[in-house]
Amino acid sequence: MADKKMVEEITSMDVDFAQWYTDVVKKAELIDYTSVKGCMVIKPAGYAIWELIQKQLDARFKETGVENVYLPMFIPESLLQKEKDHVEGFAPEVAWVTHGGLQPLQERLCVRPTSETLFCDFYKNDIHSYRDLPKVYNQWCSVVRWEKETRPFLRSREFLWQEGHTAHATAEEAEQRTIQMLDVYADFCEEVLAIPVIKGQKTEKEKFAGAVATYTIEALMHDGKALQSGTSHNFGDGFAKAFGIQFADKDNTLKYVHQTSWGMTTRLIGAIIMVHGDNEGLVLPPKVAPIQVCVIPIQQKKEGVLEKARELTERLKKVCRVKLDDTDKSPGWKFADAEMRGYPIRVEIGPKDMEAGRCVLCRRDTREKTEVSLEELESRVEELLDAIQREMLERARKHRDLHTYTASSMDEFVKIFHERSGFVKAMWCGEQSCEDEIKEKLSVTSRCMPFEQEHIADTCVCCGKPAKKMVYWGKAY
Amino acid sequence: MADKKMVEEITSMDVDFAQWYTDVVKKAELIDYTSVKGCMVIKPAGYAIWELIQKQLDARFKETGVENVYLPMFIPESLLQKEKDHVEGFAPEVAWVTHGGLQPLQERLCVRPTSETLFCDFYKNDIHSYRDLPKVYNQWCSVVRWEKETRPFLRSREFLWQEGHTAHATAEEAEQRTIQMLDVYADFCEEVLAIPVIKGQKTEKEKFAGAVATYTIEALMHDGKALQSGTSHNFGDGFAKAFGIQFADKDNTLKYVHQTSWGMTTRLIGAIIMVHGDNEGLVLPPKVAPIQVCVIPIQQKKEGVLEKARELTERLKKVCRVKLDDTDKSPGWKFADAEMRGYPIRVEIGPKDMEAGRCVLCRRDTREKTEVSLEELESRVEELLDAIQREMLERARKHRDLHTYTASSMDEFVKIFHERSGFVKAMWCGEQSCEDEIKEKLSVTSRCMPFEQEHIADTCVCCGKPAKKMVYWGKAY
Repeated sequence: MADKKMVEEITSMDVDFAQWYTDVVKKAELIDYTSVKGCMVIKPAGYAIWELIQKQLDARFKETGVENVYLPMFIPESLLQKEKDHVEGFAPEVAWVTHGGLQPLQERLCVRPTSETLFCDFYKNDIHSYRDLPKVYNQWCSVVRWEKETRPFLRSREFLWQEGHTAHATAEEAEQRTIQMLDVYADFCEEVLAIPVIKGQKTEKEKFAGAVATYTIEALMHDGKALQSGTSHNFGDGFAKAFGIQFADKDNTLKYVHQTSWGMTTRLIGAIIMVHGDNEGLVLPPKVAPIQVCVIPIQQKKEGVLEKARELTERLKKVCRVKLDDTDKSPGWKFADAEMRGYPIRVEIGPKDMEAGRCVLCRRDTREKTEVSLEELESRVEELLDAIQREMLERARKHRDLHTYTASSMDEFVKIFHERSGFVKAMWCGEQSCEDEIKEKLSVTSRCMPFEQEHIADTCVCCGKPAKKMVYWGKAY
Repeated sequence: MADKKMVEEITSMDVDFAQWYTDVVKKAELIDYTSVKGCMVIKPAGYAIWELIQKQLDARFKETGVENVYLPMFIPESLLQKEKDHVEGFAPEVAWVTHGGLQPLQERLCVRPTSETLFCDFYKNDIHSYRDLPKVYNQWCSVVRWEKETRPFLRSREFLWQEGHTAHATAEEAEQRTIQMLDVYADFCEEVLAIPVIKGQKTEKEKFAGAVATYTIEALMHDGKALQSGTSHNFGDGFAKAFGIQFADKDNTLKYVHQTSWGMTTRLIGAIIMVHGDNEGLVLPPKVAPIQVCVIPIQQKKEGVLEKARELTERLKKVCRVKLDDTDKSPGWKFADAEMRGYPIRVEIGPKDMEAGRCVLCRRDTREKTEVSLEELESRVEELLDAIQREMLERARKHRDLHTYTASSMDEFVKIFHERSGFVKAMWCGEQSCEDEIKEKLSVTSRCMPFEQEHIADTCVCCGKPAKKMVYWGKAY
């Protein structure tokens, strides 16, 4: 324990979850604050996670025919205003550029909060015939939303994301693409981030400004709060009509295109921290761990130990992302440091291990130790990385299921949210007034109407009128 | 020729090089113009080139120990003003954000034109001891400079780039890193883009705002104009003093860090077009060609042809980036289209070829055709891609050398720039007045003082005073 104190201490999750989160992002060196209020520096350990997310998500996009593009970061005010709901949703929170060089601009430009309007302006000129469809474009960039309260990764004035924007000949094809991308997101979260998600549709109140339908994946954090982790929107032909995006169809008539958009952000890093982290710090799923294995020599001053540690590191380079900690700190300090930074496996090698022709593998997620013969090192590490990835998902799913409750009356509903935290499944009449009342009373919002509906009761949990949908409710980030 | 006309025509280079360039970027679908003046859409065929540049350049960075980060896109006005030369260089061409949401900001923010000041602000808090050094960080992002005249890829109000920013304990180490990154850039241009470059130092007049020394790589375009293709700056401790970035050295005294920065941009795509392109369109070096091979069936309605073309495409997928053109256009149209888009190799396969168990490979760069046995397809394509990559560099070098002249008097100097276009090597006294005079008279600037100096004359080509340096002069983009 003395050694552990040498690594700066992290507030316990149970004492103060918000402070625990802040400690982890700072002390695992994922981010730093800046002189620019509400904006953050993403440091190497944080950015390397984002690079792994980008690489694997982008590969999944490309498998479905997505092509990457880049559009300007500025939107002329008149362009932003073309779709009524959209401008109402975003205008209050955009940053405005009013001067270029020493001159005032003739028209204000906003820094993109999202790029629907720019894509529409582009598609209007780029789409003429059914032969030009579908367009399935995506861009990786940063966007700006002038938030009042900010938290690293979860809500900041500038964040990194991808935004896909597609145009289709028919409503059916647009709806298909909307769901297809939601599925890509859900699979990515489960298979790469080891985060189980609920797929469903947002209510009218919670949907995206300008969308006909918004679909979402919702994840449950360790503290029982929900995090919207990715959304996919079907716009129908609303934007196409506002912008005049028409094509000549096979039957030679002019038709409006149907559009979608979908996005995921650096907020996913916040989800990884809050789903998998523990009181020792970060716990990274192997597939997004920039360092998967950390080799730590024991009694490294003894003859041959450091050489052996170097040899094992070199061997492991062929099968994983590995680093050697050969600093002059004590092994205990290095263990605590490796734990705080969330490396999935640490390898311990000392004189006794060398004599016995073995080393010790210690899992970050369970802290379980195994002795393995040096001959089998690579294969055992690979197996263990696979097992960690798989079991982290299972554990997160179990936690999520344990913290998912059912309420068939308002009393039950209130009681659960007062005593516990998690998702609550309850019936809803479909009226926004009930959502408003629940939000007012409990600071709880409808997370989604899940695709997998259950019949919990006949009546709305709030007003008692006949129920239309089962809804996941929760407190959200 | 009738077939060629079916592909929209490109202005001949010799008639109007600027129009040829514009035609190529538009018709090869690399970019599109937008409603945002001076900003462009980078379309899939253009962005895919940038992705290949990023991937290969980033890998070279990481081999030298570079770590990626992300800093905010906004710079508070007070921060930009901390280094006097720097603010003077950039303030006249930045975009200013004055409102966030519905509120005016207390302090204006500029959209980063470059991030020296942000990195300094970050390093000031992140660097304490010699143990924290060196910092070798880089970011991939977009930057904004409010240019008056813009051209796709070459000069636009927003462009994509990478910017490396490093901090070191000693002046020597900073200088070493500055040169090391210039070498990375030069090797990348030659080995990946097949563009030979001149390495050298910028004069005082041409160096970066705030730098002690700016190094550059200069390339020669097909029209004989120069393009600055990458720069690397040594800042000494100027920024460190302005921002107060100090560290406790091993001897326990406080010292200022020494800094560098270095950047390459989407302008490289402009260089690829203008170095390798011809009157049929784009010519892409295989290493940055998103599609390296295009398979075109001849008489594709004949039995078995399309199947065979598909089979060859599948086989080639294992060794290169390949696409099949199975549209209902004529082979002639497809050839012209593939040429315009710059695919390094096209594979022609028709009934006669099938009978003979062969196909035809046609190189984009030389238009040379070779018949190859179907059995050898993969190996011959791989060899040919290597040969094209190598020979494109050789050809570009030959062109550059042929258009590099020597002048030992002002008469010669003027005559060359009146009659020809290219680099002119000439001596210089070191005075800015001579640079100013040459620029005024001929619109020619000093491109660099090359590392490989030659003795051409004893006296300055302009004023006749004793010469200090041999300089490459040229008209520049």
